[in-house]
Amino acid sequence: MEKTDVLVIGGSAAGIVAATTAKSFYSDKEVMLIRKEDHVLIPCGIPYMFGTLESSDQNCIPDTGLTNAGVTLKTGEVISIDPENKTCKISGGTDIGFEKLVLATGSTPVQPAWLKGVGLKNVYTIPKDKTYLDSFRACLNGFKKVLVIGGGFIGVEIADELSKSGKDVTLVEMMPHVLALAFDEELTIKAEEVLQSRGVKIKTGCGVKEINGDGKVSGVTLDNDETLAADAVVLSVGYRPNVLLAEKAGLKINDIGFIRVNEYMRTENPDIFAIGDCAEKRSFITRTVKPTMLASTACAEARIAAMNLFKLSTVRLFGGTISIFCTSIGDYAFGAAGVTENLANERGFEILTDTFEGIDRHPGTLPDTHQQIVKLIVSKESGIILGGEVMGGKSTGELTNLIGFVIQNRMTVDALLTSQIGTHPLLTAPPTAYPLIKAAEMIAKKRRAGK
Amino acid sequence: MEKTDVLVIGGSAAGIVAATTAKSFYSDKEVMLIRKEDHVLIPCGIPYMFGTLESSDQNCIPDTGLTNAGVTLKTGEVISIDPENKTCKISGGTDIGFEKLVLATGSTPVQPAWLKGVGLKNVYTIPKDKTYLDSFRACLNGFKKVLVIGGGFIGVEIADELSKSGKDVTLVEMMPHVLALAFDEELTIKAEEVLQSRGVKIKTGCGVKEINGDGKVSGVTLDNDETLAADAVVLSVGYRPNVLLAEKAGLKINDIGFIRVNEYMRTENPDIFAIGDCAEKRSFITRTVKPTMLASTACAEARIAAMNLFKLSTVRLFGGTISIFCTSIGDYAFGAAGVTENLANERGFEILTDTFEGIDRHPGTLPDTHQQIVKLIVSKESGIILGGEVMGGKSTGELTNLIGFVIQNRMTVDALLTSQIGTHPLLTAPPTAYPLIKAAEMIAKKRRAGK
Repeated sequence: MEKTDVLVIGGSAAGIVAATTAKSFYSDKEVMLIRKEDHVLIPCGIPYMFGTLESSDQNCIPDTGLTNAGVTLKTGEVISIDPENKTCKISGGTDIGFEKLVLATGSTPVQPAWLKGVGLKNVYTIPKDKTYLDSFRACLNGFKKVLVIGGGFIGVEIADELSKSGKDVTLVEMMPHVLALAFDEELTIKAEEVLQSRGVKIKTGCGVKEINGDGKVSGVTLDNDETLAADAVVLSVGYRPNVLLAEKAGLKINDIGFIRVNEYMRTENPDIFAIGDCAEKRSFITRTVKPTMLASTACAEARIAAMNLFKLSTVRLFGGTISIFCTSIGDYAFGAAGVTENLANERGFEILTDTFEGIDRHPGTLPDTHQQIVKLIVSKESGIILGGEVMGGKSTGELTNLIGFVIQNRMTVDALLTSQIGTHPLLTAPPTAYPLIKAAEMIAKKRRAGK
Repeated sequence: MEKTDVLVIGGSAAGIVAATTAKSFYSDKEVMLIRKEDHVLIPCGIPYMFGTLESSDQNCIPDTGLTNAGVTLKTGEVISIDPENKTCKISGGTDIGFEKLVLATGSTPVQPAWLKGVGLKNVYTIPKDKTYLDSFRACLNGFKKVLVIGGGFIGVEIADELSKSGKDVTLVEMMPHVLALAFDEELTIKAEEVLQSRGVKIKTGCGVKEINGDGKVSGVTLDNDETLAADAVVLSVGYRPNVLLAEKAGLKINDIGFIRVNEYMRTENPDIFAIGDCAEKRSFITRTVKPTMLASTACAEARIAAMNLFKLSTVRLFGGTISIFCTSIGDYAFGAAGVTENLANERGFEILTDTFEGIDRHPGTLPDTHQQIVKLIVSKESGIILGGEVMGGKSTGELTNLIGFVIQNRMTVDALLTSQIGTHPLLTAPPTAYPLIKAAEMIAKKRRAGK
């Protein structure tokens, strides 16, 4: 039997960050990472393998980050965990003993078994699997019409990239709008406008009844009995946490299928941690469990788990997921952090919201100026910022991160009104109309009016 | 005599924000803004009138923001303030009575009277004066060689823009590097490399002894007696606060020439406030008075003064200037917030610093990927972030703002290590190597090692 102090199962973002952080924090401990894959794809870069990038090789995470940090890297499949004896069984290999175990087993695309035709040829999902995706890419030339089912981030990005590479793409979403879980209606409409202007056709408010075809895909029938022709279908209807190993080891799984953990990312077994797509998360704001799956959230959890492996620290807790994310469609980008207006209302917050529309450079006569929109969602009682949504140009990602930090620090509207920012003609909105502060001003006015 | 509840003197960024915020906060009060200029230039856009923009008209702040907000706009020059009778004398006009007065009188370029040749033809400064700058622009075609003296932000941006428009430009700076007050050496060297790659010649560590010429400029003699030929000289050696009106009205002026104010931006006269380039500021970190002149800082002060005009609020204080700024040179941008390593050492902080170098997209094989560098300056004792410096692409402005918010919220290295961020291939660094968090990790490691 092999032995290591820390064993990390899973080689994507969460696993890598957990292993390197553990080695950095506890340099005298041996850290091993075991994964199934020969090559690890950058998860968020996967959609860009279908247009912008020339090959999947351009979207791989190099192993040097791990090896340079002194982590032992092993390729192999863990088939069971024995928590009592603190060992893992490896398929076709020797057992590995551990002192501390980190589960970063990730997630797998949902295959809707109930959907007729899901097994037809040319029906694809988007797993984090280089071999599978390479074979999908190899078939792309033969497809003219592609249907993407599911208008979340992955669906939107894949649709845009396939369209960019010359396909006739239709995006089908059951909800009234694409990205409807991430943004309120006004921003989803903007996103749809940008997508359509780039040639993506959109069908919303309509589920798929059946995938049609004889052996291979010929199209789909929608719930309203409309049929759409297609050479290929991409199913992007969500991901399921990989928790089988944990479940078999007797670890608790929560009601929505994730491995139960506390704020240290520790399971009920003090020697086993879980992080990333497979681990339970609660919303920072609503405190309910949430099926968030984001590489950036996973990395925060990974750092926290790693730092708490051998000694707990009350200042290094995971406070709940803020679900900060952003996406780029053509020249525009969209970002969100915290709760939407819809979700806040649904959960029972009394809120005020407002939206400021401005520009991301100043003067607006400068080349490459984008419209910039910021919406804030604020607790009426306390004035604390609960969420924000952004549309703008290439600075949208970091502006969304700024809102994320506002939320994490539980900043109020008053704190924003007295905040300092930096501005520059070519890089930001003007100092007189910085969108975050203008939106806060508008909400402050409503608060004063007792609205 | 005319009367108004609130009188704002000065029509640039600070004046505009003070007037509109006052009207928004105290909607039943009459607010008047008086300024000398017919047209107000966007201050930070001025350098871009010398290359990117086609005319100064493209760089004007429209008056509609003021008039739509219900502010009375008046053009005229205030020649004296009578604090006892609460009136202002207007050149060639009727007196204006006020209940509350806001001084936003701005700053004027330093004219180094001691410098021989400063009065020669074709020696220019960069005041916020449309007429003056238009006449400078009108002469540009006649100049081939231009010397820019002073390598602060304005000097760097003007030099880059003039070079972009085809001039042979040399930038002369007395300190060892350009931008040396804003950044530590490693970042200033990077900025110089980018400037040079764009054709700007740089002479640092060398003052100007004399401007040469007979009637009009022919060149300069440096302190080391080297001479440089030039058709025109741009002096960008700092700005002086406009405090004459305040001084004559008996208001206190601090040791470095700014109008004394407290955290409400109020002078010792409870009815008179001062904001922007003319108003005293203390460093958020070092607590010493500081000659910061930034439109963005000015706007924060303006909001705070306006909100406190008729009733003070202890949650709407100005906590000191964080000096958040950024600039763009070619494809690269540079930003800083808080203190540099140099300044922190000089003031007596015990600090730890580290610098992370990464990329601003992921994978780095994506088009338009920039090198991204983040340096953090941290209090060794408390772990609180005191400053940060950034080099990167177009997201640098908002990333610098993120560091500004980290400083304002007095976040620690541990808080950063547990922070959530959002990432996207086309918009940010990877989640596994987000520069702010990686720099924090490197410093955390030094802290643990007791270095």
